[in-house]
Amino acid sequence: MGRLVRLTEQGFIDLVASLSRAARGPRGAGWRPVLGIGDDAAVLPSAGRLHTLLTTDLLTDGVHFRAAWTPGFLLGKKALSVNLSDIAAMGGVPRACVFSAGFPRRTRPAYAREVARGLADQARRHGLAIVGGDTCAARSLFLNVALLGAVEPGREVRRSGARAGDGLYVTGALGAAAAGLRLLKRGARPPGKGSAGHRAVRAHLDPEPRVTAGRLLGMTGLAAAMIDLSDGLLQDLPRLCAASGTGAVVEEAAVPVAPAAAAVLGPGGARRAAIVGGEDYELLFAARPGLEAQVAHLARRIRLPMSRIGQIVPRRRGVHLLTRSGQYVPFAALRGGFRHFPADA
Amino acid sequence: MGRLVRLTEQGFIDLVASLSRAARGPRGAGWRPVLGIGDDAAVLPSAGRLHTLLTTDLLTDGVHFRAAWTPGFLLGKKALSVNLSDIAAMGGVPRACVFSAGFPRRTRPAYAREVARGLADQARRHGLAIVGGDTCAARSLFLNVALLGAVEPGREVRRSGARAGDGLYVTGALGAAAAGLRLLKRGARPPGKGSAGHRAVRAHLDPEPRVTAGRLLGMTGLAAAMIDLSDGLLQDLPRLCAASGTGAVVEEAAVPVAPAAAAVLGPGGARRAAIVGGEDYELLFAARPGLEAQVAHLARRIRLPMSRIGQIVPRRRGVHLLTRSGQYVPFAALRGGFRHFPADA
Repeated sequence: MGRLVRLTEQGFIDLVASLSRAARGPRGAGWRPVLGIGDDAAVLPSAGRLHTLLTTDLLTDGVHFRAAWTPGFLLGKKALSVNLSDIAAMGGVPRACVFSAGFPRRTRPAYAREVARGLADQARRHGLAIVGGDTCAARSLFLNVALLGAVEPGREVRRSGARAGDGLYVTGALGAAAAGLRLLKRGARPPGKGSAGHRAVRAHLDPEPRVTAGRLLGMTGLAAAMIDLSDGLLQDLPRLCAASGTGAVVEEAAVPVAPAAAAVLGPGGARRAAIVGGEDYELLFAARPGLEAQVAHLARRIRLPMSRIGQIVPRRRGVHLLTRSGQYVPFAALRGGFRHFPADA
Repeated sequence: MGRLVRLTEQGFIDLVASLSRAARGPRGAGWRPVLGIGDDAAVLPSAGRLHTLLTTDLLTDGVHFRAAWTPGFLLGKKALSVNLSDIAAMGGVPRACVFSAGFPRRTRPAYAREVARGLADQARRHGLAIVGGDTCAARSLFLNVALLGAVEPGREVRRSGARAGDGLYVTGALGAAAAGLRLLKRGARPPGKGSAGHRAVRAHLDPEPRVTAGRLLGMTGLAAAMIDLSDGLLQDLPRLCAASGTGAVVEEAAVPVAPAAAAVLGPGGARRAAIVGGEDYELLFAARPGLEAQVAHLARRIRLPMSRIGQIVPRRRGVHLLTRSGQYVPFAALRGGFRHFPADA
């Protein structure tokens, strides 16, 4: 094993540990691990009668990202963000995480340091303790996070809670991450700061997990079922419907399209990206009929748009898109038609 | 993405989930996850006032194992075992885990299925729920597990609890895993079942995590400090001493050498392997003076030898091996002298 890798391996865990300890955010002030990195396992204080949430997500070079176009800081941050998004989709509070990283021998120590900094920074923002890690040499770069959260018993928001008649909502706007991925794949020069292209690339590289929104949607009981949009509406809505034993109708005209997506892909391409594109990490949720005003109130309170994009229907009616021209197109049929869309490649 | 990999990826998580649900062992009957694999995160019932333990360990092809000589079943099993060993070393009870796996495209589906079977089987043996997973294509095979356990507040056994005067103990016998690794590296034909060579190879591929011993050493308060021997006495004892702010003396003649190691490496080689070799996953612990009889009683009760191999001493005296010929050799000096020992390569 080369000296460079050896340095990186030991250094990486130490660096994450020290950055994570040093930078305790305001939300992290309330609790501390009994024991963090450095023993055989971390010890976390009892969360009283809270249930524990546990999730894991993996980012691999060439599959989930490309190291060539992903700054180390944003890679480390995103590895946490995608897991935070899962905890958000359960209505939970993130508490602590462990990571595993595989670095190719050619990895520059500066890049690994940036990854560590991104991990630690995002942990700090969310009041999260990084309590363990493991790294080694690997043929391709990967970064895995396992994230532990807490939720009040019975308050977890499952995928399976939707019922026919529920409204179907989405936070934020969709399509920007897919537009950003298309720009990155084209290999064009980085778009200028403040441009739509820059915002789109940023949406792909640095998605914002909707932790506060997910928590409030769970605590208030507004969300009857919830999932995060990691693979996109086209794939994630059928998952929510399958778990709930329902169908759904999405009104194309009601789907919020990110302005950055429209600027990069044009209006038609952006509308498709909003439905087919993945990695927006917005929350998709169902709420009982009659709760529209309460959802709108919550959205205003946290300054995050929540759009009603359709309705949950009985299972036998399937999962359909109601297009602007008034046609009902099955979700399964969209997949083929959008095959060459960037997010699919 | 090829059809084979696609099948393997989705199939792998489903398979682990179904194997894990189907095979609930007697120790697993007492509790169930509120929600297992299939949602954004798993939900585990509150563990009352217990603290939570969290650890992660990574196995990578070419670094921690070689797929060429590691049956899939034992790879899956070992990925859990090395994490179980960490929870054992804290005196905790394992409760639930998540895994991440990267499979090269050339991986045979049958191999991946065996990995899943090994994971699920070892989870069942330890009453452990597998509550989440993520897989993807990767250039080299890796398997990561994050394991969650529980422990009574204040009962966790840290590395830092040793004091000068404590006895130093080890469970089981050492050196067999290093002997097995040497045989595997030689590439000789698999040794016949029942032979010492077979037992040595087995010790390397299929270590037994000392979960019951660790738990009892913690609950009884016998272990003041504990660490699992993943990297070997030579590296792990200095870690325990550094955390405790102590030194230690190990009596070479008192170190229990695995018979399989002696048969494969000869008596001298086996004695060295017992000190330098890694991956035995036995527990190394310190107990206050005067507790020898109680340790011996516990060892008889669970039918696992616990040998007193030396003593904790003040930090200024360093970490030494007292050889059979009566010399005090610093641990740091052993590293160089044993450089070409198989476990180092």
